[in-house]
Amino acid sequence: MLGPGKADLLEGIRETGSIAAAGRKMSMSYKRAWSLVEEMNHAFKEPLVASARGGSKGGGAHLTNAGEAVLAHYREIIALTETACADRISAIQGMLLDMSGEK
Amino acid sequence: MLGPGKADLLEGIRETGSIAAAGRKMSMSYKRAWSLVEEMNHAFKEPLVASARGGSKGGGAHLTNAGEAVLAHYREIIALTETACADRISAIQGMLLDMSGEK
Repeated sequence: MLGPGKADLLEGIRETGSIAAAGRKMSMSYKRAWSLVEEMNHAFKEPLVASARGGSKGGGAHLTNAGEAVLAHYREIIALTETACADRISAIQGMLLDMSGEK
Repeated sequence: MLGPGKADLLEGIRETGSIAAAGRKMSMSYKRAWSLVEEMNHAFKEPLVASARGGSKGGGAHLTNAGEAVLAHYREIIALTETACADRISAIQGMLLDMSGEK
């Protein structure tokens, strides 16, 4: 339902106010970016992204309250995981061969 | 380097004392199980699995101290992630359509 790609796309829409611009930042086609947005909007009870095609504002887009909430929860999950597991991940990495400089 | 499949294989070797038996429990071919074990043994500074082909014990296998440690760290990472993120994961799930009964 939500992974790093979709989360970054939401973040990009939040920053640029445009689905197309958010997609471009990720080297994603306009079609692909729209398709991911529609997928997310259909998967959730409320749409995560609201967009206006054409008009004076020329197709702007923004995150809805639901979109802001989902993005915040997602970012927090990543941060909590990294914090909670940092020592264990380091311990395993320290046991691996040839991991110097790698993550 | 390590995901649910390899972790379960280590767990199976720990329980059964046999690479073949551990693989069978996971519907994995003997060849595939051995190949995963060799991959792990080569990726880490010390082998995770020690095995004796043939002999009176007939090809038994067991986790080394390094294998026990890696498995324990891995299990702890999964448990910590689930604990740390439970509320956030629930929050996102509650916003999804048609997720009743699913994880």
